[in-house]
Amino acid sequence: MKMLLGSGELRAMARGCAILGAGGGGDPHLGLLQVLQASADYGPVPLVDLDELPDDSLIMPCGGIGAPTVSIEKIENGDEGGRLRQYLEEVTGRKVSALMSSEIGGANGLLPVCWAAQMGLPVLDGDGMGRAFPEVPMVAMHLAGISPSPAVMTDERGNVMTFRTISGDWMERLERAAAVEFGGSASATEYTLTVAQARSGGIVPNTVSLAIRIGRAVAEAERSPVDALLTDVGGYRLISGKISDVERRTTSGFVRGSVLIEGLGDDAGRLARLELQNENLIALERGRVLASVPDLICVLDSETADAIVTERIRYGQRVTVIAFACDPIWRTEKGIATVGPRAFGYDFDYKPVEDLALAGT
Amino acid sequence: MKMLLGSGELRAMARGCAILGAGGGGDPHLGLLQVLQASADYGPVPLVDLDELPDDSLIMPCGGIGAPTVSIEKIENGDEGGRLRQYLEEVTGRKVSALMSSEIGGANGLLPVCWAAQMGLPVLDGDGMGRAFPEVPMVAMHLAGISPSPAVMTDERGNVMTFRTISGDWMERLERAAAVEFGGSASATEYTLTVAQARSGGIVPNTVSLAIRIGRAVAEAERSPVDALLTDVGGYRLISGKISDVERRTTSGFVRGSVLIEGLGDDAGRLARLELQNENLIALERGRVLASVPDLICVLDSETADAIVTERIRYGQRVTVIAFACDPIWRTEKGIATVGPRAFGYDFDYKPVEDLALAGT
Repeated sequence: MKMLLGSGELRAMARGCAILGAGGGGDPHLGLLQVLQASADYGPVPLVDLDELPDDSLIMPCGGIGAPTVSIEKIENGDEGGRLRQYLEEVTGRKVSALMSSEIGGANGLLPVCWAAQMGLPVLDGDGMGRAFPEVPMVAMHLAGISPSPAVMTDERGNVMTFRTISGDWMERLERAAAVEFGGSASATEYTLTVAQARSGGIVPNTVSLAIRIGRAVAEAERSPVDALLTDVGGYRLISGKISDVERRTTSGFVRGSVLIEGLGDDAGRLARLELQNENLIALERGRVLASVPDLICVLDSETADAIVTERIRYGQRVTVIAFACDPIWRTEKGIATVGPRAFGYDFDYKPVEDLALAGT
Repeated sequence: MKMLLGSGELRAMARGCAILGAGGGGDPHLGLLQVLQASADYGPVPLVDLDELPDDSLIMPCGGIGAPTVSIEKIENGDEGGRLRQYLEEVTGRKVSALMSSEIGGANGLLPVCWAAQMGLPVLDGDGMGRAFPEVPMVAMHLAGISPSPAVMTDERGNVMTFRTISGDWMERLERAAAVEFGGSASATEYTLTVAQARSGGIVPNTVSLAIRIGRAVAEAERSPVDALLTDVGGYRLISGKISDVERRTTSGFVRGSVLIEGLGDDAGRLARLELQNENLIALERGRVLASVPDLICVLDSETADAIVTERIRYGQRVTVIAFACDPIWRTEKGIATVGPRAFGYDFDYKPVEDLALAGT
C-alpha cells in the first residue's frame, strides 16, 4: 500500500483533481463531500500501486458519465458503484480487485474512492486519462487496444445496462444516449483490464499521487498559489483577467459553449476565448491558438488557484487561465488522433503548449 | 407439434400478420422473404402449443423494435436472433426452449419463425399482443405482472446491450433511445417467461394459427376478399375510398402521422382520418371516433384485402378501412390503461368497436 487516503489526502486530492480536470470531470466539491462521508463511514481507502497487485487481478475503471451541468443538481444516490461492480463481476465471471478512476479529473477522480470505501477495496494509483476528457474512448486503454466491453451503466433509480459494442465509438454513442434518457448523467464502467494490461501501458500511472501533490503545492504555497501551481506542473499563464461572457448549453449529454476572458492588469486590452465540451478544449486569442487538447487548459481563481469547472464559470469571476503539458501518451500519433483538435472537429494540427508559448513570446 | 410451418402456411401467415398488425409491426413482405429463405435453408419450423412444453421451459419473446419506415430500408443481417438468444441464455443462466413473437402483427410475427429455423427451435402458437402495438410494455406479459428484465437488444453490426430496468416504461425509454442510435431500428427480446407463466395469462394464445386462418380466409375468398375477411374476424367496414393525404414523419424511433381517406362509391362525400404511431391508433370522421386502440384498425387494398402497413400508405391508393375487436385482455381495466386511447395521449374513453358501429348506424 502506498498510503491510506485520509481526509488530508482527500482534500489535497480534490484540489488536484479539479486542476487535472481541465474544467471537466464534474464538480470536485460534491465529490469531496461524498468521499469524506464514505471515508468516515467505512474507513480510509488504501491507495495501491500496480506492483502490489497480481498480474491477473481485475481493475474496474469507473466514474460518472454525462453533462457536469446536470450532475451538480442530480447527484448519485450512493449505491451506483456497488451495482456497477456486481454486474461487471456477473458478466465477466471474475472478481474485481481494485477500482480506478476512468478519469482523474474533477469529481470523477474522487467518486471511485468513495465507492471503494463502501466495498472495502483499494484504489489504484492511476487513471485512464491523466486528466478529464468528454468521451468514453478517450482513455489510455483505448490506445493500448483494450476492449471497451463489457461495460456496465446504472442510474440512481436502479436501472442497469450492460454493453458489448464493436468499438469505443459505439460505446460512446450508446452510453451517451442512455445518459441523456437518465436525465443527463449516470454512472459507468468500461475498458475493464487486468493489472498485466495496465502495466503494459493500459493506464496513466501515478495520477492519484499526482493530484495529491498538485493539491498540496497549491494549498501550501507561501505566496501566489497560481505561481506555485505553475512551478509544480511546469505550466504557462495564458491570460489573467475577468470572465466577460459565458455561452453554455447542455446538449446531447454534454456541456458545450465558449467563455470570453478580458485581460486585466498586465493583460489589459487582451481578449481570450475558450471553447468547451465538458472540458476546456482550446484557448484562442485573435485567431491564434494559445493551447489546445490534449494539453490541459485550466481556469483558476486568480487568488486561490482553485480550478473552476466549466459548469461553474460565470460572468465577473477574476481568473487566470493556465495550460500545461498532457501525459506523453496523448502526444503519440494515436493519442493525437484520439484527442487532438481534429478529434473535436477543429481544423488545425496539435502543437504542444510549450512550443505555442515560445512562439507567442 | 400443431403443424410444420411450410411455405404455404408462411404465405398465409404473412397475410394474416399484416392484417393483425393494424398497420404496424413492419412490412410483412420483407418478413416473408426472410422466413421463406430460412425455411428453405434449415427446414420448416414446428409450431407448438403451450401444452406440449414442460412448465419450466423458457420462452423468448422477440422481434424488431423501432420505426417501420426505417426497417424497410435497413434490414436485419440475419444473425440478430442468435445473439439475442446467446446473451439471454447468458444473463438468465437458462436455455431457451421456444421462440415467440413479441407481437404477431407485421414482419414481427414472422421474424421469430426465421430465427427459430436457424436455431432448430420451435415457435410457440401465441404472442405478446394478439396484434401490434408501438411500445415495449404493451404486452400481455406486462398485464400479468411479468418483469420486462432481463432484456437483450442487438443491431445488425453486432452491438449487444442487456437491460435490467425498474419498470416497463424505463425499458421502453432506454431501448427506444438505443434503437434511435442504431439508426432507427434494432432487434430485441424482453419479458422472457416460462411456460407456466404463459399458461396463467402471460401471453395471447393461438395467434399464429389465427394469422394463418385469416390469411387463408382472404386468399381463398370466392368473391370479395374484404367481405371474406370481415366475416372471418367479425369486423366492421369504416370507409371505402382513396387516400387523399398522408402526413408521416419518423421521429424518436417511431413513425407518427395521419392519413386522410376520401370516400368513394357508397361512401362518396365522406372524409375519414387515421392517426398513427407505428400502428393505426384511431379512426375519426367529423370529430366522431369510428374506432380506437386497442381495437384493430386496418387499411386494406380494396381489391385484394391485403393490409397496407403505415409506412407504405400513399396518395391515391384505393382502400377499405376496417376495424375489429382486440383480444379480450386489452378490454380489461389494466388493458385499457395500458393501450387505450388515453395511453396514447387522447382525451376520450375507449369504446368497443361494436358499440361504436351500432351508434353510427
